[in-house]
Amino acid sequence: MLGPAPANQRLVRRHNLGVVLRHVAERGPRSRATIAAETGLNKTTVSSLVAELLARRLLADGVVTRGGLGRPAQDVALSGDGVAALGLEIQVDYLAVHAIDLAGRSRHRAMVAADNRARPAEATLGALADLANDALSHVRAQGLLAIGATLAVPGLVDPRHGRLLLAPNLGWTDVPLLEGLRAGLEDPDLRLHADNEANLAALAELWSGAGREHRDFLYVSGEIGVGGGIISDGELVRGARGFGGELGHMTMDPEGPSCRCGSRGCLEQFVGLESLMRHAGLVAPDTADSATPTATLVEHALAGDAATLSALADAGRWLGIAVASVANVIDPAAVVLGGYFAPLARWLADPVAAEMRARVVAAPWAPPVMVASTLGRDGAVRGAAGWSLRAVLDDPAIVPELSDRARHLGG
Amino acid sequence: MLGPAPANQRLVRRHNLGVVLRHVAERGPRSRATIAAETGLNKTTVSSLVAELLARRLLADGVVTRGGLGRPAQDVALSGDGVAALGLEIQVDYLAVHAIDLAGRSRHRAMVAADNRARPAEATLGALADLANDALSHVRAQGLLAIGATLAVPGLVDPRHGRLLLAPNLGWTDVPLLEGLRAGLEDPDLRLHADNEANLAALAELWSGAGREHRDFLYVSGEIGVGGGIISDGELVRGARGFGGELGHMTMDPEGPSCRCGSRGCLEQFVGLESLMRHAGLVAPDTADSATPTATLVEHALAGDAATLSALADAGRWLGIAVASVANVIDPAAVVLGGYFAPLARWLADPVAAEMRARVVAAPWAPPVMVASTLGRDGAVRGAAGWSLRAVLDDPAIVPELSDRARHLGG
Repeated sequence: MLGPAPANQRLVRRHNLGVVLRHVAERGPRSRATIAAETGLNKTTVSSLVAELLARRLLADGVVTRGGLGRPAQDVALSGDGVAALGLEIQVDYLAVHAIDLAGRSRHRAMVAADNRARPAEATLGALADLANDALSHVRAQGLLAIGATLAVPGLVDPRHGRLLLAPNLGWTDVPLLEGLRAGLEDPDLRLHADNEANLAALAELWSGAGREHRDFLYVSGEIGVGGGIISDGELVRGARGFGGELGHMTMDPEGPSCRCGSRGCLEQFVGLESLMRHAGLVAPDTADSATPTATLVEHALAGDAATLSALADAGRWLGIAVASVANVIDPAAVVLGGYFAPLARWLADPVAAEMRARVVAAPWAPPVMVASTLGRDGAVRGAAGWSLRAVLDDPAIVPELSDRARHLGG
Repeated sequence: MLGPAPANQRLVRRHNLGVVLRHVAERGPRSRATIAAETGLNKTTVSSLVAELLARRLLADGVVTRGGLGRPAQDVALSGDGVAALGLEIQVDYLAVHAIDLAGRSRHRAMVAADNRARPAEATLGALADLANDALSHVRAQGLLAIGATLAVPGLVDPRHGRLLLAPNLGWTDVPLLEGLRAGLEDPDLRLHADNEANLAALAELWSGAGREHRDFLYVSGEIGVGGGIISDGELVRGARGFGGELGHMTMDPEGPSCRCGSRGCLEQFVGLESLMRHAGLVAPDTADSATPTATLVEHALAGDAATLSALADAGRWLGIAVASVANVIDPAAVVLGGYFAPLARWLADPVAAEMRARVVAAPWAPPVMVASTLGRDGAVRGAAGWSLRAVLDDPAIVPELSDRARHLGG
């Protein structure tokens, strides 16, 4: 298809394939003529690019639109039948996988409880590879090509090298995540990526969650630890080395309680699940599990338990002080409460909002909206799968054309 | 030059003008052939675009490069002889203007002391317009076209509407900055823009200061107030409404001293110049002036005055705690100390670095570099002029071609 064009023209064409695919991904199904008019590419070029994207099964023919005067035109839409990607997640208390196709449909999901603090990292990565292999065969059985997998981990990840530096709550230090995962994968060519879970969950909120209406928001997530992700102008703010979003380790009180990270008085010590349970006078049945204690807190709060309500009010106040400081620095349009903050939002939202009104300089003009995540525990894996799918939008040529694919799939 | 091409092609050409101009701005002088090879545009197109940019006096012919085998090629470079822009600044204690040409050369500058707390905002804007008019005639006398002016203000600015919402230290609320400035300007067509001074100073660090080597850094600035600017991946993080960077109003102690912004325990109350002077046992001769008290502090610190050294150590510690919290959230590669923090960096840097080592989760792997700004009080005006010049890089067609320009200049 590409023919003997000079290198520059091939590069330009490859770039333009992405322009057309992203355009349809962002704006929805439309005709070739509309794509040409909106992107500034000429109609012949667009037709040829669309033909290539159809051949790669990234676009599919859609409905026929009849305009006022011109000939009826056939829309093209993102194809759900070509490629899918896996989102993988390691949490303190479970492993998860979610396969999503390019049209955003869920194709396979699984979650297994596991005490990942109690076994070596290699064992956890091996178990995750098994889960991924199983997902890959389900994806293949549906006629889809798995294009990549992204791994979400609750810790400091160096995304460029796929290494975990530190996950205080897993007790992991310096783990070569992708190396360990790849060792157990049946498909050795799968594109792998690893990132912090809260970063990926923030992207999931942007792409399909509470952040869809906002291109600038702060995602705050409580799991066993407290993390966050910043979306600015529709992009994740990763920071220089990808270590951003560690809201849980903002200093609330320089002389406060010591934290697993080595510092003192971190936000996590004030609003983390263990601290919340303790202040509510409750005992977590198993600290490696965040769902059960959260349910217990909700139950006690609904029953009007004074100690629980006071612990929640206090946590909301500290969370609000921290979020207000971040809001002063990055001016988000919205704050999305995720992880266990979402089911507790009913009690946390008011004290958080009160601190923001009192402490954000710009609040009188533009108070950030507060929303609770509706993605539940699925946020990080969704964002993870989305990250791998985005690689296709960035460079559609990484997906083989149908003829090559038959070879690829047939071995 | 544009001819009767269809709208799309005109748009594409206009876009490509910017591609070529930005390419030369970012990569330096180079030949047409090199530009073509590096941008993927074809050589004929590049020649035609370069011709247009020469006609608009945005590029100029440069040195002739002799390659190994091919014909000698003439480089094109950014032209310093075509356009210039003004950076304007209102501070509590002075007004400033700085005219810079597209090649980054300083063409005119002026600074006048003024107690801008003591007179109405309109009077200050009128005085600033006088300063700008004077600068415009100097620029015109040098044969340059003034393409725009950007105003830096120490407060919360809505850059989309050119309005100041709040400048606690000027005592200003809801001031239509650009309306007021335009009323006094002799050139009614000048493109005007307004922004927060620390945001613009952060951009100046990126373009021509300590941040040049870093595409991700946090700029922290002390003037009468404390502000900041975040550069992420080479771009200013403005936030949803442009109100980001208000580091001075991060909460350090929820029950701490009350702040001019209405909150309590803000960083500004711990490291602001007034607090520093008080803790050093010194009295600021005039609180509307930051240069004199800074010089006094430096003098006392150099003389080994115990109270001053202790006040600086304490301020450094609080500044470090705040910067560490921000570093956890946005992971900058560097922290640039600006404003009065720069001359005091000698005493502040150690305590700031110590808190960062103790409190930034990623510090063991990647401790942010600390650097003092070398732009001095010139940062904000430089960034302001640069902002207006960037509008030319974004869309070179806003600059008239030479023939039109003669008409433009001649009236």
